[in-house]
Amino acid sequence: MRVASLTDFLLQRIDRNCGKPMNRQLYQVVREAILDRVMPVGLQLPSSRDLARELDIARNTVTYAYEQLMAEGYLETRKGAGTFIADTVPDQIPDAADGGTLRPRKTGSIGLSERGAELVRHAGAYRFQWGAFMPGVPDVSAFPNKVWSRLQNKHWRRSRPEMLTYGHGGGYLPLREAIAEYLRVARSVNCTAEQVIVTSGIHQSIDLASRLLADVGDRAWVEDPCYWGTRNVLTSLNLKPVPIAVDAEGISPGNADLRHPPRFIYVSPSHQYPLGQVMSLSRRRMLLEYAEKHNVWIVEDDYDSEFRYASRPLASLQGMDTHDRVLYLGSFSKTLFPGLRVGFIVVPPTLADAFATGLSDLYRCGQLFVQAVLADFMGEGHFASHIRRMRVLYAERQQLLREAIRRNFGDALPISGDDAGLHMALVLPDGCDDAALCREAQEHGIIARPLSGYYMKPERAKRGLILGYACVPSELIGPSFDRLAALIRPRLPRL
Amino acid sequence: MRVASLTDFLLQRIDRNCGKPMNRQLYQVVREAILDRVMPVGLQLPSSRDLARELDIARNTVTYAYEQLMAEGYLETRKGAGTFIADTVPDQIPDAADGGTLRPRKTGSIGLSERGAELVRHAGAYRFQWGAFMPGVPDVSAFPNKVWSRLQNKHWRRSRPEMLTYGHGGGYLPLREAIAEYLRVARSVNCTAEQVIVTSGIHQSIDLASRLLADVGDRAWVEDPCYWGTRNVLTSLNLKPVPIAVDAEGISPGNADLRHPPRFIYVSPSHQYPLGQVMSLSRRRMLLEYAEKHNVWIVEDDYDSEFRYASRPLASLQGMDTHDRVLYLGSFSKTLFPGLRVGFIVVPPTLADAFATGLSDLYRCGQLFVQAVLADFMGEGHFASHIRRMRVLYAERQQLLREAIRRNFGDALPISGDDAGLHMALVLPDGCDDAALCREAQEHGIIARPLSGYYMKPERAKRGLILGYACVPSELIGPSFDRLAALIRPRLPRL
Repeated sequence: MRVASLTDFLLQRIDRNCGKPMNRQLYQVVREAILDRVMPVGLQLPSSRDLARELDIARNTVTYAYEQLMAEGYLETRKGAGTFIADTVPDQIPDAADGGTLRPRKTGSIGLSERGAELVRHAGAYRFQWGAFMPGVPDVSAFPNKVWSRLQNKHWRRSRPEMLTYGHGGGYLPLREAIAEYLRVARSVNCTAEQVIVTSGIHQSIDLASRLLADVGDRAWVEDPCYWGTRNVLTSLNLKPVPIAVDAEGISPGNADLRHPPRFIYVSPSHQYPLGQVMSLSRRRMLLEYAEKHNVWIVEDDYDSEFRYASRPLASLQGMDTHDRVLYLGSFSKTLFPGLRVGFIVVPPTLADAFATGLSDLYRCGQLFVQAVLADFMGEGHFASHIRRMRVLYAERQQLLREAIRRNFGDALPISGDDAGLHMALVLPDGCDDAALCREAQEHGIIARPLSGYYMKPERAKRGLILGYACVPSELIGPSFDRLAALIRPRLPRL
Repeated sequence: MRVASLTDFLLQRIDRNCGKPMNRQLYQVVREAILDRVMPVGLQLPSSRDLARELDIARNTVTYAYEQLMAEGYLETRKGAGTFIADTVPDQIPDAADGGTLRPRKTGSIGLSERGAELVRHAGAYRFQWGAFMPGVPDVSAFPNKVWSRLQNKHWRRSRPEMLTYGHGGGYLPLREAIAEYLRVARSVNCTAEQVIVTSGIHQSIDLASRLLADVGDRAWVEDPCYWGTRNVLTSLNLKPVPIAVDAEGISPGNADLRHPPRFIYVSPSHQYPLGQVMSLSRRRMLLEYAEKHNVWIVEDDYDSEFRYASRPLASLQGMDTHDRVLYLGSFSKTLFPGLRVGFIVVPPTLADAFATGLSDLYRCGQLFVQAVLADFMGEGHFASHIRRMRVLYAERQQLLREAIRRNFGDALPISGDDAGLHMALVLPDGCDDAALCREAQEHGIIARPLSGYYMKPERAKRGLILGYACVPSELIGPSFDRLAALIRPRLPRL
């Protein structure tokens, strides 16, 4: 390539009207030509003065581009001789042994891992996170923003550097103390602050527990149906979730299951997700005795039991455990707001140090400011009073939803899980295609999730709709359900 | 157990002076006795009136405890006959097949998994996160708190429910746009907002990329030495980090390495962590060509290149990649403050959907408020001006540290990596026990991390100290280093 043809080359590739600075364009065109080996090593470039004249641009522009290219190693100057393309061509790359170039996995062409492709295929998170009848979302519009803002400002005003750097250990101690105190009183959880590990929510809690307690290929019992997130986190860590049937008393392992103890058992005893039943006392005792006998861990997901309408809240499974086999998971997503991303694990004392270390090392924590604000929010009593207010509100909304169901269907469609929580399951007859129904509802602007989608074993799957009522304004519950009912009705067998 | 002995039993276990409410104590003692099978199934309890008299407590107290026990299923009433211990004894638990009770793993007695025990053993996160010479921590006391608070309040005032619920997809779009714009200009990264995935920092970015791109047992090249966090995240996901030597030009795979392409290559080309050299252009070209030839992903960790003192910042490796093999990782931990927990991955367009889905599904995102505040902070120019201010400040502090080193040791101890970033490496002679030195320094209130600890291959490990200067007040740098020097000196061979 001679200087004349170099100039032509550049002129063809530079666009004076594209709005991009000329020095940037020049830099990029030359750089690309070098990387593509269009401009060979050792080629001498014209002086900045000559090139500026040839291209009819300011000399500074050329100088700037040359300097950047020089700084990055594309060009070099030889004393008295001028500017040259530097030798940055890498050595010949050897072929792979055993022809071992990595081929895309059998997961499609974009090159995901097998676990990655599996995760994307079974993705459960929903694009819509607000509206009738989004399950699992509280009424965030009732959150006391002003109080929160005030506490937030207080902490930012007296900002200490320690609060802005990485966290270390199990979280901000005053928050851990506030959580321990709350759990002792409200959930009969047996714990000290040191056992409380502050996470970014249930997902991180499952993730941490799975990595620290289970190895690749280990089995973990999950309820069937269960929360999609649990399954996805376990699978993406290469654990094997074993689906165990649930009955009216909760998880119900058969003798064949019991003969093969898993590494841990993941259960939602206070309000089975998504069906909503409470685990019976004898089932609880069975699980605890089994866990002790076989060195199995129990992971108790207590995601929304603060909102219990029909009776006093039951004590946690953790509180009944006298052999330190239970890890208790909770979250502020349902009691305050999901976007807060604060949850916690209460671990047995023997695991407290390992979990605190694992947390800092795996996730490099922080958000101490948020944790401090939350600690104050609890300490000043706003947490307890917010829960009280919301319990009244959600009870009313649940009542409205139950009335709307009765008005439309009488007793023909059973309701499951309305003792507690933010959602209920409306059970549909076996033949009903609940997934298609939910897609249709979505086209009408109504969110409902199909019960069958929560099952791992298709032959076990009941049909139904998971309906959240907590985040739906009271006056919209009846009308929204009426619209949904109009879509349900044609899909029912003649009653 | 007869009623009389039951009363004795309760009297022995109830403590009127312990401050715990009597109804709670009664509930707990009876519950425990049932769970421990001290009170047998079918045992009749005295009426609340009788028991209250026997224990000399209020009848209401007994009634409350009975009701709670009844609600939880421990007691039952039989019509007209009274209150009895309910049958909640679980069925006989079958033995495990093949005597398969899970034994604690060979990881000590507390029952961690092998990967969990490995993680705890190699934990790298440091208890102290602030002070001379903490590496990797910016001067958070210079952060413009007031501006941040103002933006925060603005968003909380006009709070929309969507901002408080779960996030979905790759993050808050205006923030992704602001990041893309910034990266295009400042780092020559080639991207649109859709390619930007907002994470909670480098750790989550590595975690997500590892799960989506690599399976159990896959190999990933890492620089040796490298950041401890990378290694720990990879290992806890059962990838095999393969340590590749670095030389003055950056990562330097030998022919034996090159013949076995890994699943991905993890590099810090702008400022090798922790040694600090910049990857040469020919090494960059070699990596890119190799990645294209063998379908290997490159993960570029660009953790602190905003702070470059000696020359203009180099373009990112991502910007040179014409075959979509590079994932670019960045973070606001060094530019703003670590506790913010916001980072990002820029992925090739083909991976954008999968990464957005994986993010929501694995971690259930949120913190949209924080993302909105950050988007405004960038949009209003505070981000750029904060970086400019900090660059001047850190350059000054680096200069002070270099002077203190020269004052104490002349040119006897080489300094590595002082072109950019928040830390430098002070290289010590081979025989020097840098780990012991750092422990000693810590006893004197000085933080330094041993260079040898960052190596995976011990025979390769250089000795030295990783010294952060960004978060140390200028006036403390000289005196703090003098104290450190007094500890270094006796460990040096006679010069």
